[in-house]
Amino acid sequence: MASLSKFDGLELPASADFHVHLRDGAMMETVVPSIRRGGVNTVYVMPNLIPPLTSASDALAYKDRLQKQDSSGKINYLLTLYLHEKITPAVVKGAKAQGIVGIKSYPAGVTTNSSSGVISYEPFYPVFQAMEQCGMVLNLHGECPSGEDITILNAESSFLPTLKSLHNKFPKLKIVLEHCTTHDAIEAVKECGPNVVGTITPHHLFLTIDDWADDPFCYCKPVAKLPRDREALLKAAVSGSPKFFLGSDSAPHDLAKKKGGRGKTAAGVFTQPYVTQLVLDALELAIERNVISERDVSKEILRDFLGGHGRRFYGITDGSNEKIILRKGSETIQESFKGDGVEVIPFRRGQSTWSVEWK
Amino acid sequence: MASLSKFDGLELPASADFHVHLRDGAMMETVVPSIRRGGVNTVYVMPNLIPPLTSASDALAYKDRLQKQDSSGKINYLLTLYLHEKITPAVVKGAKAQGIVGIKSYPAGVTTNSSSGVISYEPFYPVFQAMEQCGMVLNLHGECPSGEDITILNAESSFLPTLKSLHNKFPKLKIVLEHCTTHDAIEAVKECGPNVVGTITPHHLFLTIDDWADDPFCYCKPVAKLPRDREALLKAAVSGSPKFFLGSDSAPHDLAKKKGGRGKTAAGVFTQPYVTQLVLDALELAIERNVISERDVSKEILRDFLGGHGRRFYGITDGSNEKIILRKGSETIQESFKGDGVEVIPFRRGQSTWSVEWK
Repeated sequence: MASLSKFDGLELPASADFHVHLRDGAMMETVVPSIRRGGVNTVYVMPNLIPPLTSASDALAYKDRLQKQDSSGKINYLLTLYLHEKITPAVVKGAKAQGIVGIKSYPAGVTTNSSSGVISYEPFYPVFQAMEQCGMVLNLHGECPSGEDITILNAESSFLPTLKSLHNKFPKLKIVLEHCTTHDAIEAVKECGPNVVGTITPHHLFLTIDDWADDPFCYCKPVAKLPRDREALLKAAVSGSPKFFLGSDSAPHDLAKKKGGRGKTAAGVFTQPYVTQLVLDALELAIERNVISERDVSKEILRDFLGGHGRRFYGITDGSNEKIILRKGSETIQESFKGDGVEVIPFRRGQSTWSVEWK
Repeated sequence: MASLSKFDGLELPASADFHVHLRDGAMMETVVPSIRRGGVNTVYVMPNLIPPLTSASDALAYKDRLQKQDSSGKINYLLTLYLHEKITPAVVKGAKAQGIVGIKSYPAGVTTNSSSGVISYEPFYPVFQAMEQCGMVLNLHGECPSGEDITILNAESSFLPTLKSLHNKFPKLKIVLEHCTTHDAIEAVKECGPNVVGTITPHHLFLTIDDWADDPFCYCKPVAKLPRDREALLKAAVSGSPKFFLGSDSAPHDLAKKKGGRGKTAAGVFTQPYVTQLVLDALELAIERNVISERDVSKEILRDFLGGHGRRFYGITDGSNEKIILRKGSETIQESFKGDGVEVIPFRRGQSTWSVEWK
């Protein structure tokens, strides 16, 4: 069976996960300890708490809470703000000075806690100009809100003209198209200049629509789409292009929000404890399906997707020296992760996966 | 607000629902009493029990159990068998003689209780020939099993060449393409001769993919798709064409199978108690969206979609004399239907709907 057993025992720099949801309270206490379990020591933390983080002081207070959960003391938290009318050029400059790395934009109503998100970008042009000037990164959840001709199937493709327009107006602005899920998104990112990149999640390297239609634990936004899209993501991940790197979008929800009750299913796939391992599993499955070849996946390709490209894009040097060791073994993904009144079900529970050790 | 208030007080023949799932045991006891509540006195009963109905004697025994649940004594049950290697030309002839109306085909593994369903039709050509000769109807769940290039999004469109091929080989065979969900399916049915028709469910007149992605109570197979597809179904329903008529595919599942636990979501939308009412609601919403006009929906169009076309196609005269009266009022769809150890959540629970009285 085709595999990446050549990587058994491989030493790599610690992974950097450029898109995480760590929540707050009891859920945060459950999730933060799982970060290093996934071979990750650097996390780019999304701001969509309730209420979302719209000031540097809120973000720094949050960082404090995160650091208190991390007994290793070895996680580098990169903080973001939530794009909102409260964000002004002055807020941008102040936040940059206080170490905030980026600003995340959510289209209104498209995903969790994004009911205060944006619809039109023009009001934010002064903010983007300030970000461009001081080197703050714009992180885009790139989907148009559903409407007459927009559904969750074409929401991302429909957003791409907006991406290109923003890039053309602000060519020096670093823009990340988060969690790319389509062939079209990959192509659009490629067509832009070097300041535009895209993150790819481990779960989108596995999933198509058939997988999540009847499985709440595979359901997230943007939704996984067609085999052709998954193929494009896999190829981008192993292309070696600095434009594509890991952002897990690990999005934990309590079991009751995924199953139970009679309400809508919360969107989000939980992968934090196995981020590095899942990337390897996905690549192995892709090799079995002949979407990529074992030769495509060199140590350098893997290292750069798991952290190298992202660290360089964001200029992150902290944490690059720590090492992890991959082991192809008999680790099984836990059935669930429990905390104080919370329970989170991980992606691919019960499946075998790689192990990650810290050197 | 655009509406069909002109139909308030309208007297119609009782509706005929040409695609129902009535289950067995406690679920059957819960569902059968809801049939007449939906203004329906004639039901075409699908055979996918566990185990499925593959003999006339099993089907007739099932009919007995159904009739015992029906205190009105006024429901006409039309029975079907499940297409399976056990079905032979001799079985077909014997079943026809015992009043079985049709045979239902499920593609393997595509939907509930279809793990013993078919993949290739050639082995069944002698059966189809016998059905053609003795006037038994072939009911098709028209989707290709998921595979390399097939997902739940194109499973139905991919099936249409098979539909046309069967029709060409057996031009006198009455074929029903069940629960059409795409513009392509509507067009394919139109392109075939008069022996090929299609049923349309009330829920597919409401839903697109956005509705079921995060709502198990809107999730069924074939999945609801794009606005353009919904539009094609609405237009077909009010076209007056005898090729399109009501088959609710009301598919009850216990709440635990829709929510609860950690397993996959069972596919099926439960509409039985409100079948007639939901068609009216769907048409009203379509008028509001300007997909159809109020003038498109005449009394005759409604009557024929709700039962006229179907009864003529199947040659059903029993039950045509009973009348229902529609009332546009303040009926609210019940939150749930409970039975002995079962609970089923209806489609559009809590929403207002029409009332149906029996004359």
